[in-house]
Amino acid sequence: MTDARLAELADRLPTLRLLTDPSDLEHYGRDWTRRWTPKPLAVALPGDVAEVQAIVRWANEHGVAVVPSGGRTGLSGGAVAANGELVLSLERMNRVLDFDAVDRTLTVQAGMTLHAVHEAAKEHGLIYPVDFAARGSCSIGGNVATNAGGIRVIRYGNTREWIAGLTVVAGNGDLLQLNRGLIKNSSGYDLRHLMIGSEGTLGIVVDATLRLTDPPPPSQVMLLALPSMDALMDVFALFRARLSLQAFEFLTDVALKHVLAHGAQRAIEGDHPYYVVTEFDADEAAQDAALAAFEHGMEQGWISDGVIAQSEAQAAALWRLREGITESLAPHRPYKNDISLRISALPAFLHDIQALLGNAYPHFDVVWFGHIGDGNLHINVLRPADLSEEDFIAQCEHVTKLLAETLQRHGGSISAEHGIGLVKRPYLGSTRSAAEIALMRGVRQVFDPKGLLNPGKLFD
Amino acid sequence: MTDARLAELADRLPTLRLLTDPSDLEHYGRDWTRRWTPKPLAVALPGDVAEVQAIVRWANEHGVAVVPSGGRTGLSGGAVAANGELVLSLERMNRVLDFDAVDRTLTVQAGMTLHAVHEAAKEHGLIYPVDFAARGSCSIGGNVATNAGGIRVIRYGNTREWIAGLTVVAGNGDLLQLNRGLIKNSSGYDLRHLMIGSEGTLGIVVDATLRLTDPPPPSQVMLLALPSMDALMDVFALFRARLSLQAFEFLTDVALKHVLAHGAQRAIEGDHPYYVVTEFDADEAAQDAALAAFEHGMEQGWISDGVIAQSEAQAAALWRLREGITESLAPHRPYKNDISLRISALPAFLHDIQALLGNAYPHFDVVWFGHIGDGNLHINVLRPADLSEEDFIAQCEHVTKLLAETLQRHGGSISAEHGIGLVKRPYLGSTRSAAEIALMRGVRQVFDPKGLLNPGKLFD
Repeated sequence: MTDARLAELADRLPTLRLLTDPSDLEHYGRDWTRRWTPKPLAVALPGDVAEVQAIVRWANEHGVAVVPSGGRTGLSGGAVAANGELVLSLERMNRVLDFDAVDRTLTVQAGMTLHAVHEAAKEHGLIYPVDFAARGSCSIGGNVATNAGGIRVIRYGNTREWIAGLTVVAGNGDLLQLNRGLIKNSSGYDLRHLMIGSEGTLGIVVDATLRLTDPPPPSQVMLLALPSMDALMDVFALFRARLSLQAFEFLTDVALKHVLAHGAQRAIEGDHPYYVVTEFDADEAAQDAALAAFEHGMEQGWISDGVIAQSEAQAAALWRLREGITESLAPHRPYKNDISLRISALPAFLHDIQALLGNAYPHFDVVWFGHIGDGNLHINVLRPADLSEEDFIAQCEHVTKLLAETLQRHGGSISAEHGIGLVKRPYLGSTRSAAEIALMRGVRQVFDPKGLLNPGKLFD
Repeated sequence: MTDARLAELADRLPTLRLLTDPSDLEHYGRDWTRRWTPKPLAVALPGDVAEVQAIVRWANEHGVAVVPSGGRTGLSGGAVAANGELVLSLERMNRVLDFDAVDRTLTVQAGMTLHAVHEAAKEHGLIYPVDFAARGSCSIGGNVATNAGGIRVIRYGNTREWIAGLTVVAGNGDLLQLNRGLIKNSSGYDLRHLMIGSEGTLGIVVDATLRLTDPPPPSQVMLLALPSMDALMDVFALFRARLSLQAFEFLTDVALKHVLAHGAQRAIEGDHPYYVVTEFDADEAAQDAALAAFEHGMEQGWISDGVIAQSEAQAAALWRLREGITESLAPHRPYKNDISLRISALPAFLHDIQALLGNAYPHFDVVWFGHIGDGNLHINVLRPADLSEEDFIAQCEHVTKLLAETLQRHGGSISAEHGIGLVKRPYLGSTRSAAEIALMRGVRQVFDPKGLLNPGKLFD
């Protein structure tokens, strides 16, 4: 340990796991973005809350920046450590601390994966309903940091709705127990909600009390082929009015091409520009309603073809067409936009943006998919093999500027669920006003006076 | 207009409605608490957002404190103006600004009553599900300021869950448009949630975009008589497990006595210490399940008697037994406690607190009621006719101190839904740690550097 500050930390916390091997620095210094070269000072893996507090106090004394780190599945560079920061990984703090059957809450350490939370809830006959494809790797702490959304928001809302309490280490090392599992609590500012979505810049979440709920009724999964983006909005309105939706996801033919090439099974023959994977409550009445809605959509010309899963295996195969996209695109190092609008603003926005992207990326594969019922679109631009990464990102950044301007005009957000991090930092002003950003900076100053928690993320 | 500052305001905003008659000062200077003598400087009734901004800027220039004012149905003194403040009443700003069928949102000005919101939602075949007895007078702005809860929280959550966007005038007069109706938005700190429950100390809500939802399925209302507080917890667990609850409210025999004396109709004969009013989804299967649950509760000795409403009129009559309580107690000028705990913490807390109150108030009528499914209890102490108001409050404050200590031990909150205001300010430290309160003060400083928005509320 050649760094005197690290030696002092190791001295102060003799049982702290502290990594400085180059391979560890690289592994823990980056997330699913690959744009920055990891260069942390070291990686600390505390085993308990007291160690987290001690690390934050040490960081204050030595002026060392701290990057809180969960599963590092983030797509906006929120967990990147490229400037000599200490990575504080919650990986080892991954246990269930408490289950309460009366309150129907599960208290878990921040490093627990979303999948492990799902399993723990299931053991008690309940569910934690936030869900998305990175479930096996992402951590609850990271979910809180970005207010993670995913594929069930249309039924259950975002992570925010399921957080009954948070234990947080503030920028000065103080331990905060926010809301403590209460359902009703009108006793001043709700700092819990301030913490949710703050991307590690206001405090380090060490544990979370999650609300659980009853499993949904049995459901059915349907894949639909659609002729146009306009039809997508019509089918969404039709299905939402007639069914109790658990999910309503879309993808384009380009997305389908990639996911099929990655091993998924084709379920509808022929060429169709848009597809929908939808899941809905399926008692007998609902099955009839689904069939009627499908037939009405066919008659109107909104639906070209469709298939309904006849087994759990088929349902999983249909879901793979949507959930496999991110993984299938990963080798292409896509440039990702994760935007949202009011659903009502989507048609006019899509009209503007399709023209914009058509002109901007004539030779690029642009892959669209996302959560139409939440107004959330993922736009992935794939790098052509003959273009350098640097040139590719420069071109994408130029287009993102235009995209951000278009979004601003339509009242949208530059980040629906990935967070701002490093990637979207230049565009924060398209979504938040100067007055809001000034207030955010002020709030940050209150929680972390020395600016040591995840500096450079969200704003510089 | 003898006050030079007011003359200047009137000069600057010639169309602003500005009241200084003593009767107006009294009317607008107080809320449903009656402990403080109203003494505002004047009452301003702006007609639009620009006037609100101009008033706040004027207040900054002249160092005048501003008390935002809605329906003034508050029970914690949050809207009291007793120190020469300007009351800024949103009363005239009470219109629907927008309804969007695709987003299912209703945007209303802050001065609109909750009842008017309900009616406006109904016109579109939807509901705004937050509901409580003060619906006819309370305003949406006030609901946001306290994160109002009420009788449907068990199904629908608090006000917070239904706010898709807020327009707020900050302490410096800046206009903030927070979240703008988006479902997903991970673009920095969620200042909307910080504003909700901030009791007018961070900004003045001028309009709110409310999410609406489908009306619930047909329901049934049941009144149950119970032999004990323990039985209450058992019956709650039983009914929650077997029915889809819309409400689960309790009251004591003392509460019943008052509401009957105030004109409500007795529905169950005999003396029983506890009663429950519950409403649940009532398709055919649910009716059988309700009957089975009721019979099981009777067999177990948890339920002594019960009645199920056979008509809408009967349902309303049963509800009146619960909803009429606050009004029936008003002539007694009750001292109110509005506390919450995790549901799981209720039994042990109730054990401790019943002993405490029995000793503390041997000669007082103590009326308990509330929302057991939310862990929210209302404890109303009635002033004996032979005790001066001053002595009565002094005695109650003494007991509240003990109550707050007991709550703190059990992890509860001194205010579930009324807010801290002036009434609960001395006890904030029982619910929020010193570190949290320091952060709250810091946040307040960021939003309202001169401390002019509702000073003295929440903290001094």
